[in-house]
Amino acid sequence: KITASARPGDVQELYVYEINERDRGSPAYLRLSQKPVNSLGDLVPFSNKLYHGNLQKRIGITAGICVLIQHVPEKKGDRYEAVYSFYFGDYGHISVQGPYLTYEDTYLAVTGGSGIFEGVYGQVKLQQLIFPFKLFYTFYLKGIGELPSELLGQPVPPSPAVEPSAAAKATEPNACVPNFTN
Amino acid sequence: KITASARPGDVQELYVYEINERDRGSPAYLRLSQKPVNSLGDLVPFSNKLYHGNLQKRIGITAGICVLIQHVPEKKGDRYEAVYSFYFGDYGHISVQGPYLTYEDTYLAVTGGSGIFEGVYGQVKLQQLIFPFKLFYTFYLKGIGELPSELLGQPVPPSPAVEPSAAAKATEPNACVPNFTN
Amino acid sequence: KITASARPGDVQELYVYEINERDRGSPAYLRLSQKPVNSLGDLVPFSNKLYHGNLQKRIGITAGICVLIQHVPEKKGDRYEAVYSFYFGDYGHISVQGPYLTYEDTYLAVTGGSGIFEGVYGQVKLQQLIFPFKLFYTFYLKGIGELPSELLGQPVPPSPAVEPSAAAKATEPNACVPNFTN
Repeated sequence: KITASARPGDVQELYVYEINERDRGSPAYLRLSQKPVNSLGDLVPFSNKLYHGNLQKRIGITAGICVLIQHVPEKKGDRYEAVYSFYFGDYGHISVQGPYLTYEDTYLAVTGGSGIFEGVYGQVKLQQLIFPFKLFYTFYLKGIGELPSELLGQPVPPSPAVEPSAAAKATEPNACVPNFTN
Repeated sequence: KITASARPGDVQELYVYEINERDRGSPAYLRLSQKPVNSLGDLVPFSNKLYHGNLQKRIGITAGICVLIQHVPEKKGDRYEAVYSFYFGDYGHISVQGPYLTYEDTYLAVTGGSGIFEGVYGQVKLQQLIFPFKLFYTFYLKGIGELPSELLGQPVPPSPAVEPSAAAKATEPNACVPNFTN
Repeated sequence: KITASARPGDVQELYVYEINERDRGSPAYLRLSQKPVNSLGDLVPFSNKLYHGNLQKRIGITAGICVLIQHVPEKKGDRYEAVYSFYFGDYGHISVQGPYLTYEDTYLAVTGGSGIFEGVYGQVKLQQLIFPFKLFYTFYLKGIGELPSELLGQPVPPSPAVEPSAAAKATEPNACVPNFTN
């Protein structure tokens, strides 16, 4: 049996959940605009936990900053410009840049990565499930070798009710990627 | 007749104007250095309007942040490090990273994109026409398919006097790209 | 004699030292968390000097921002998310994004560049020698032509004691790259 290895031009999908379990002091909403409503000038550093799309494994964290661009009253939400990374323990990281709208799905640019993600490019779809605590991402990745099986597999369909497995939440050894980022 | 489609290695030029019409509360100069002269520590979130290089169509917005690096008295200006994106309505976005000098042209890195700009790379030339209200950009883009004709075409030569067409300023339907970002 | 030119897929290594000589007002530690210990919410714009890995030539500067993500007491250090660029005078710049841990080496993503670094991708290893004043970087670069000989060559092995040559520190013409960034 021949295992086809991924070629640089191939698209590989990778699914992760970003979950704020309210134990990392995140987000830090810096109201630097000094205005009562969210306004340009506000900055929001953040860092949340990252789980496999199947919710069976803790992967790592997200880390970065959102720049408040615009309050959008007719959508009852906000436009942010986001610059952040996804950390996958010993596997490395993926960096992204682009739009985060609290009221609809967006696509961000994948700007690069390290480790198994060295040379990665493509885009990532951000779906918000519970603002700002639960998000689902579908990465469309190019430029890298075949992803390890531990990161592959179908996700739990995104919904506000999804929760990581108890083992993954407790970061039990068999429910984490190697040296998961914390 | 055969239409040659762009190959990934080909360079496509794309021209846009970024114009601050003073109606978006931008820029937000955050004098976090707490010094009387612009200094390292100051941050400048911003978001301006984006027009086609021919000034006949509204395209979208820019969104991001400039980090004040250095006041340069002998140039009567400042060096910023800039991280931001260009939004093109339904077409997607382009993200960039690099230098913004208020006193001379610079080139920034194109770090990625979404939509028709998925997988884009290359660089962009920034020319300032009226600080900080009117800028002209020439993108040198690789890694993507042929740009739609609506985004192509020669630009109005950059000068401080250029203005978008009245129809584009008024965002009339025939003077905007589909679902222009606002 | 045939000189083989680098092909896009080839990896080229580039070594540089980043040194804070305490004369640029950097870093600007913005304690926006308003907490006594480094915490999410703190931001750190910075700009340091950049020297060739052989310490014989001044190259330019670094410029960007670190976002404090997490204080890690058991490591007596901090996790930052970093977004910044390396400036090489007339040669152009390289932009990066990723982790900076004050207590261990990290790899950041190379997100793009300008000039001779147009279209660059890959990763860079960050080694801290003296926090936060002396760092050594090994770039693993792809997607660009052969680097100029002035930027090549073996580095002085990284150690806390290394110092740039007196000529490079004094930015003597023969100890700088063309129009080194300052």
